Amino acid sequence: MDEEYMRLALELAKKGEGKTNPNPMVGAVLVKDGRVIGTGYHERFGEKHAEVNAIEDAKRKGYSVEGATMYVTLEPCSHWGKQPPCADRIIEEGISKVVIAVEDPNLFVRGRGIEKLRKAGVKVEVGLLEEEAKTLNEVFVKYITTKTPFVAIKLALTLDGFIATRSFSSKWITGEKARRKVQELRKKYMAIMVGANTILKDNPRLTCRIEGCSEKVKVILDRHGLTANGNFRAFKDGRVIVFTESEKEWDNAEVIRETNPERILKILGEKGIDSVLIEGGRIACQFLPFADRLHLFYGNKLFGKGISPFECLNVDKVSDALKVEFLKFESFGDSFYVEARPCSQG
Amino acid sequence: MDEEYMRLALELAKKGEGKTNPNPMVGAVLVKDGRVIGTGYHERFGEKHAEVNAIEDAKRKGYSVEGATMYVTLEPCSHWGKQPPCADRIIEEGISKVVIAVEDPNLFVRGRGIEKLRKAGVKVEVGLLEEEAKTLNEVFVKYITTKTPFVAIKLALTLDGFIATRSFSSKWITGEKARRKVQELRKKYMAIMVGANTILKDNPRLTCRIEGCSEKVKVILDRHGLTANGNFRAFKDGRVIVFTESEKEWDNAEVIRETNPERILKILGEKGIDSVLIEGGRIACQFLPFADRLHLFYGNKLFGKGISPFECLNVDKVSDALKVEFLKFESFGDSFYVEARPCSQG
Repeated sequence: MDEEYMRLALELAKKGEGKTNPNPMVGAVLVKDGRVIGTGYHERFGEKHAEVNAIEDAKRKGYSVEGATMYVTLEPCSHWGKQPPCADRIIEEGISKVVIAVEDPNLFVRGRGIEKLRKAGVKVEVGLLEEEAKTLNEVFVKYITTKTPFVAIKLALTLDGFIATRSFSSKWITGEKARRKVQELRKKYMAIMVGANTILKDNPRLTCRIEGCSEKVKVILDRHGLTANGNFRAFKDGRVIVFTESEKEWDNAEVIRETNPERILKILGEKGIDSVLIEGGRIACQFLPFADRLHLFYGNKLFGKGISPFECLNVDKVSDALKVEFLKFESFGDSFYVEARPCSQG
Repeated sequence: MDEEYMRLALELAKKGEGKTNPNPMVGAVLVKDGRVIGTGYHERFGEKHAEVNAIEDAKRKGYSVEGATMYVTLEPCSHWGKQPPCADRIIEEGISKVVIAVEDPNLFVRGRGIEKLRKAGVKVEVGLLEEEAKTLNEVFVKYITTKTPFVAIKLALTLDGFIATRSFSSKWITGEKARRKVQELRKKYMAIMVGANTILKDNPRLTCRIEGCSEKVKVILDRHGLTANGNFRAFKDGRVIVFTESEKEWDNAEVIRETNPERILKILGEKGIDSVLIEGGRIACQFLPFADRLHLFYGNKLFGKGISPFECLNVDKVSDALKVEFLKFESFGDSFYVEARPCSQG
């Protein structure tokens, strides 16, 4: 049963996807006398934590939480942030046991919540469905441990690997279902990054147009200032950050004079952006060394010749290739999707 | 139950894969009083047909086939070939009903077996699991209706669509499981075709090294005669056909002075070869207009730049792309497989 309760907590946690960034997604389940008396999750950045929501849910339903067991996907916090420490609340409420999927990935606080609970006489178990919990919060784990965003690259490719024809035609390589899936992907990431050419050519809105999806930070790489003073949809609303070398000025955008990919990521991290989905094909290659994830959509087409996405790679022998680990395949009829994690080159 | 018996017949038929060419695979099941009394399939080119094997199987087991119903995946033949006509035998044996999945695709004989049976008072039903039966014998159907072989192209590609690095390194783009699957693919095809460069570079045996696989006809496209007088493994045994422009001579090979893809296929058809698996990356493109099937294996690697398989295509707008229909996906851990049928260009 333990595992079932934790699985429920993980499912609850996932409901916060795209809304808690740069905080983790967390879910909690309260069990007493073999039944679930309360559930909760961290719904939105700055709002109440999962543990507190579960406690309040139980009370609202008329249950006493004293002596209950809590299943929570992440170690309860022991420090004041935007919310009071959950460990204290758990102790106050007389919860007698806490089952935790994974410790806090933040090295500076890891184990402190557990210690506080144990010192107060609460029984604590750690490690149930730990891998699932880590995967769920991989964005948070990367960000909290490196201070740079989780970097994902999304590409639409032909079966023979091209992201556009030689004349830069690319609409549409994949089908409608694949493009709908891209909208779902955007949900997970705090920012969307494209190059100036994408703005000039496609004039995208760079929004997430599915239910429950937060507004995205729009990051535009525009070395030469090609989008300055243009009337482009991406600049119409929301937060826009432009990285450039040019001295031009933009309305409705933060402008940063930086074009080095590593430093761009560092700056985004400093701005509290925990994750970036790179959607521009031609800018993707320079971020490949920092990529945590590839989202590749293949359409049912062959171009023969065209624009290759990763031309900046320099591979002469097969053994020098950049390798990836496959994580997921999905078929959409006229397109298919491959999710992969870049490993090492050579 | 009808469908179950026919499914059994289809399964039996498939046992002949790679051994009946250029004849079709056929399976037959005899049913009497609600039980299967005999089964058979066409085991090998030139040998007994499925219907006769099923009849003899029933008799061997001590059953009388009189009044039985036969489920057979293809219309019984009415003419003398290497074997006497099955329709006559069915009538002689007093079988009272025949359920046929699909009519003979050969326009010159289609319907004659059915007509003969009906005239003799045998009840005939046609069309049960027709699509499955057609797919099973797609090679036979193509060959019998066009007199040219069923053409399949097999490629091993990186995730970004390259079949080799710029320095022609390609060992190995895909993993071991994918290469084992290639062996299984070879089973279905009567001939394997490669270009001279593949012979020079990889010196392949071009054999099928899994159980129950017949020897393959080896077709080598060698415009300039680069493999003449060389000591290559493909020429060591079996049947080898070389297509060339050169005046050189080959030991152990039929040499044909022809290099036009369409005419090459016509000649192979005239030689009784019903199917070709093209494994050479660089020769594949010229056969793409004639391809019935693509077998694409993607490895877990990125090259960035390299050799593209279909450079002979001339696509400038997405709408001009060569489209395919996806038929199958399979994952092998470190590689994945996509089976597709080329549709039309543009």
